[in-house]
Amino acid sequence: MHNNQFKTEAVNRIKIAQGHLEKVHKMLESDEYCPDIILQNRAVQAALKKIDEVVLHGHLHSCVLKDLHGSKNENEKMIGEIVELFKKT
Amino acid sequence: MHNNQFKTEAVNRIKIAQGHLEKVHKMLESDEYCPDIILQNRAVQAALKKIDEVVLHGHLHSCVLKDLHGSKNENEKMIGEIVELFKKT
Amino acid sequence: MHNNQFKTEAVNRIKIAQGHLEKVHKMLESDEYCPDIILQNRAVQAALKKIDEVVLHGHLHSCVLKDLHGSKNENEKMIGEIVELFKKT
Amino acid sequence: MHNNQFKTEAVNRIKIAQGHLEKVHKMLESDEYCPDIILQNRAVQAALKKIDEVVLHGHLHSCVLKDLHGSKNENEKMIGEIVELFKKT
Repeated sequence: MHNNQFKTEAVNRIKIAQGHLEKVHKMLESDEYCPDIILQNRAVQAALKKIDEVVLHGHLHSCVLKDLHGSKNENEKMIGEIVELFKKT
Repeated sequence: MHNNQFKTEAVNRIKIAQGHLEKVHKMLESDEYCPDIILQNRAVQAALKKIDEVVLHGHLHSCVLKDLHGSKNENEKMIGEIVELFKKT
Repeated sequence: MHNNQFKTEAVNRIKIAQGHLEKVHKMLESDEYCPDIILQNRAVQAALKKIDEVVLHGHLHSCVLKDLHGSKNENEKMIGEIVELFKKT
Repeated sequence: MHNNQFKTEAVNRIKIAQGHLEKVHKMLESDEYCPDIILQNRAVQAALKKIDEVVLHGHLHSCVLKDLHGSKNENEKMIGEIVELFKKT
């Protein structure tokens, strides 16, 4: 179920990112100002990076957590920390 | 002409990146293994970053080289934009 | 013990990085060519990022692994994957 | 003079970054909590990245603005260097 929740979020985000990437494509085709194109393209990259985090989070929950037998709070905290570190890269 | 060359390269690359992003989308939908999805998504991000470089290269050629004989204010604006792009990486 | 091994590696790496950062400092003071300074400074950043990975690896080993009860191979594989993903960011 | 202004800022920032890196070193030596060490180390990396921006800004001001009236080859070389710096981020 957690898995489903993360999957739904990731799929929604990727559809939005695809729309934004098509926007970059159109900006390129219509010769818009280069720095504007790059900034828009950067936004897509940031959106994809966010999807990485969602997928990693789901992975740690659904695959890794199964093998953990500490208290729920401890496990959640550990996962949160790993994702947080990952996010800052 | 340089501009055209960079534009053609950028457009070709973005079409390929769109295909790869659609692959990530499908991997998500079909519940493939999370780390594989992330690695594929990272490859798309690297491809988009490469497009940034192509667009910047084209920009420096076609806009900056021509306009750096403009007013001091224009020059400052252009330099500020380049630093801004650099900052977001 | 794993902890000690990672700590030793991280400490050694940070001493080397400190030496390289002092080199950047001197390059700045002695007005060396800007792109060379930036490339040297980038190398320091890459070295610090590598230290992050070593520390994360040690953390997953010494803190996280304690709470895992799967087979050793499974746990190692899982940790390797997380670190690998982290590395690519 | 612009150059001096950027140089002063970069040198000040690098001294501060060196102090913060020494803090990371001590955190490692005294076995502080790994995620805290990584977050502190990330802050140093962000500070070094900011220095890159300052140096690039100074470079664009003092070298590029002056030299873009040079030969085509010189211009190409300078543009190539800027794209190269961008690529490494």
